[in-house]
Amino acid sequence: MMNGAKALLRTLEACGVEICFANPGTSEMQLVAAIGDSDKVRPVLCLFEGVVTGAADGYGRMSDKPAVTLLHLGSGFSNGMANLHNAKRAKSPIVNIVGDHASYHLQYDAPLTSDLPALADWASDWMKVAGSPDDLSSLIAEAVQAATSGNGGIATLVVPADHAWNDVREIVVPQSVDGFVKPPVEGVIGQAAEMLQTGKNTVLFVSGAALLETNLEHLGSIAEITGADIVCATFPGRLQRGTGRVPVRRLPYFAEQAGEVLAAYEQMILIGATVPVSFFAYPGKSSCLVPDNCRIITLAEVDQDITAAVTGLADRLGVTTPAAIRRSRAVPDINYTTLNPQVVGRIINKYMPENTIVSDEGVTCGLAIFAETESAESHDWLTLTGGAIGQGLPLAFGASLACPDRKVIALQADGSAMYTVQALWSIAREEADVTVVLFNNRSYAILNIELARVGAGTPNAKTLSMLDLSNPDINFQALSESMGITSWRVDTVENFETRFRDAMQTRGPRFIEVMV
Amino acid sequence: MMNGAKALLRTLEACGVEICFANPGTSEMQLVAAIGDSDKVRPVLCLFEGVVTGAADGYGRMSDKPAVTLLHLGSGFSNGMANLHNAKRAKSPIVNIVGDHASYHLQYDAPLTSDLPALADWASDWMKVAGSPDDLSSLIAEAVQAATSGNGGIATLVVPADHAWNDVREIVVPQSVDGFVKPPVEGVIGQAAEMLQTGKNTVLFVSGAALLETNLEHLGSIAEITGADIVCATFPGRLQRGTGRVPVRRLPYFAEQAGEVLAAYEQMILIGATVPVSFFAYPGKSSCLVPDNCRIITLAEVDQDITAAVTGLADRLGVTTPAAIRRSRAVPDINYTTLNPQVVGRIINKYMPENTIVSDEGVTCGLAIFAETESAESHDWLTLTGGAIGQGLPLAFGASLACPDRKVIALQADGSAMYTVQALWSIAREEADVTVVLFNNRSYAILNIELARVGAGTPNAKTLSMLDLSNPDINFQALSESMGITSWRVDTVENFETRFRDAMQTRGPRFIEVMV
Repeated sequence: MMNGAKALLRTLEACGVEICFANPGTSEMQLVAAIGDSDKVRPVLCLFEGVVTGAADGYGRMSDKPAVTLLHLGSGFSNGMANLHNAKRAKSPIVNIVGDHASYHLQYDAPLTSDLPALADWASDWMKVAGSPDDLSSLIAEAVQAATSGNGGIATLVVPADHAWNDVREIVVPQSVDGFVKPPVEGVIGQAAEMLQTGKNTVLFVSGAALLETNLEHLGSIAEITGADIVCATFPGRLQRGTGRVPVRRLPYFAEQAGEVLAAYEQMILIGATVPVSFFAYPGKSSCLVPDNCRIITLAEVDQDITAAVTGLADRLGVTTPAAIRRSRAVPDINYTTLNPQVVGRIINKYMPENTIVSDEGVTCGLAIFAETESAESHDWLTLTGGAIGQGLPLAFGASLACPDRKVIALQADGSAMYTVQALWSIAREEADVTVVLFNNRSYAILNIELARVGAGTPNAKTLSMLDLSNPDINFQALSESMGITSWRVDTVENFETRFRDAMQTRGPRFIEVMV
Repeated sequence: MMNGAKALLRTLEACGVEICFANPGTSEMQLVAAIGDSDKVRPVLCLFEGVVTGAADGYGRMSDKPAVTLLHLGSGFSNGMANLHNAKRAKSPIVNIVGDHASYHLQYDAPLTSDLPALADWASDWMKVAGSPDDLSSLIAEAVQAATSGNGGIATLVVPADHAWNDVREIVVPQSVDGFVKPPVEGVIGQAAEMLQTGKNTVLFVSGAALLETNLEHLGSIAEITGADIVCATFPGRLQRGTGRVPVRRLPYFAEQAGEVLAAYEQMILIGATVPVSFFAYPGKSSCLVPDNCRIITLAEVDQDITAAVTGLADRLGVTTPAAIRRSRAVPDINYTTLNPQVVGRIINKYMPENTIVSDEGVTCGLAIFAETESAESHDWLTLTGGAIGQGLPLAFGASLACPDRKVIALQADGSAMYTVQALWSIAREEADVTVVLFNNRSYAILNIELARVGAGTPNAKTLSMLDLSNPDINFQALSESMGITSWRVDTVENFETRFRDAMQTRGPRFIEVMV
């Protein structure tokens, strides 16, 4: 016979799962041993659960199959919840396996005991607790199906330790189970087509799979023949852009600017996106960014089949020719006088190779890089979908493991880097082809802006100390080196260019601290 | 008029709150400004929420008043939950103030939206959501009362951003409100006294406030005249020990050893402790560590007035003389051949000054240090109460801010250090008098032991890779230096002695990486 843990692994293998990001503890030791015995599932140790879940998100966004995580009890799970929040918003397929105390042990309220099922339920789209060793095979198959349903989701299986270590009665390995996705509503496609033919100012407000290259080509053609604009959500999970791609305007972060972009539209068609709203509320300002008189319809909800909706709409409109408007390759001039995000963006544009993946947690610095890389080689841009900072480094790591032949660039603000900086160790260990570009401005710069925007008055020194990362200044180069990554600190444009160019031409982890 | 945030701060000041560990975001900017304007509440920035809550725990354990935390929405709160779990088990008084989106903004499901009240409720002993600006004063006073009731607890107030920025209608600052604690049950005191006079093998199984010096003196006297033994919980929040103190046996971590310690007892009297159980379950082993035939009574529950129970029992037994058996000062011989936890413990014994506070997250290495410091100068020993690793550095930091005139030593394992290593920056910034002794054994050593104990078979290399912290080896000295702390790496006994002695004689942050 085999124990529950081994039966679970057999099923994961049958479902095609290939990777497990892990930060296990005592209650998961049987699962650890079962993973060690598997020749199909690769275990990847991360030194903090926020790295585990962020890496699973990066893998999930760039892969057609879910990553598995292995987490330890309620406290370990809670450490991973912030990046699960981002993953949920990104619709990443993730299967969490969380060990709990042995079922009979819970009643004793040992120190690590907590109500894990309630917590897992809070954070997940699907959650079940195994009731026996025999449950594990069928439930993990169900979890994989749940994670790959809709456009992806968070499935969490709680595994009491005794069910992992006790033998199953019979070995039943379910076959691979496919997720399902709701088809687009036929009537809505016709409605959208009619709206596009009215000649009114119309915006296609898009996110999710609508931002993948082939869907963008359809949308580009639709826009060209109907005069509609394409605007994407401020924080999409994955945007395919750059040379040869159909250009998409990204909705600005600040509500005033976003409102200006949307002010002129009479009609909005949502495709894999929800109605755009302000990221935060501000005194006296509206939360909804769409003009009052704008007519809004949903062509595809975030959980629906977005590709079918887009192609259905193209068919209905008789669009057959490929989009004509594509980005052309262009490298903006580089001004060598001052090292700032803009020039960093231009150098990134110049050197990043085709098919690069960018994990953008650059926050205030990231905006300029995004603007400067529109005409870079074709690439995927991954954003902070849920706003829970500490995503950037783990996401880059996971994306790199999903796409080992592609260069990954992590644009990283200093403040948010410190939430999950342990990711650097895993990047080094797995020799992931990730180049981190860290912007050291010694500040939560965004919060200094927000402080003014919420009308909190003129801040005093004590107030500002809560938004300030100086005293002491963090030496990120040394921090990164301490975890085994070749690292540089640069404070001139020339030095950044030299180091970045080298990083693009060399395989493996690199870290560049940019003093801005 | 004043806004809700300022009204809240006025009340916190009236309640005597002196410190706020903060990691704020946009939705807390009005609270940040109000804290900046307060001349009584000291803001302390931490770079990750797990540091915020761990520091609040350390402060709470060593102070007679609660620390306040300032956290950002559901994701920020979730990042702090692991150390709140530990704090809850330690009965630390903590008041969490968590900003949420403006009340009217929640309906729009902006990216950072989540069900914060449900999450806060899960993690707290008391939780309320403010319904208006006028609520904030009375609710924060209630939160302080809740946090200081029983023997301390976690109170969480959710503050929607609009209630912080809108004006209150009238300023009502509640006066300081004291918590309350359930008195001991009179009948149980008599029962315990009778049990102690039967001559049967009896153990006083103690935790919480029973481990403070004066209570231990009563317990020591009781033990001496009745022949009972004193054994404390494996992971107490705060144990006062060392020279001049009444010795207490600590229940071993491993269930087999703990079972042996308790095997001979016919009677157990619980004082501020619950029935001892195995930390984890293991196949074929009992969860409860108390012999089947042992009679157990509870003199004081964890939430009851433990001091009143202890003194009540002493009175009932007619104990008036102070305990005779106290630890004497003794420095064990130091063997200079091999640097290991035992010799590190002996050197710590030799040099640590009176009144030191020890934060012990040394895990496998911590056990030897504990054993070797029984006869050190008097000190407080703080343990990992809830088993959620990542407590050690933040706890040491918070304890140091509560007791700025006392030396703090953080005994830190390498694996657990990486969960909240950002604490080092706050230690440096606040110039906290903390000496970190980090044991670098390049391994989750405890998990290698547990792997064998759960009967998971002979591990292969792939399995062991999930428990291994080498490849790359982390350079903790460089890591600590990168955050502004004077740091050393030592690999000989002589070097450790030199550096540790210097650290004990110098005020301010020091970090010693011990290669073991």
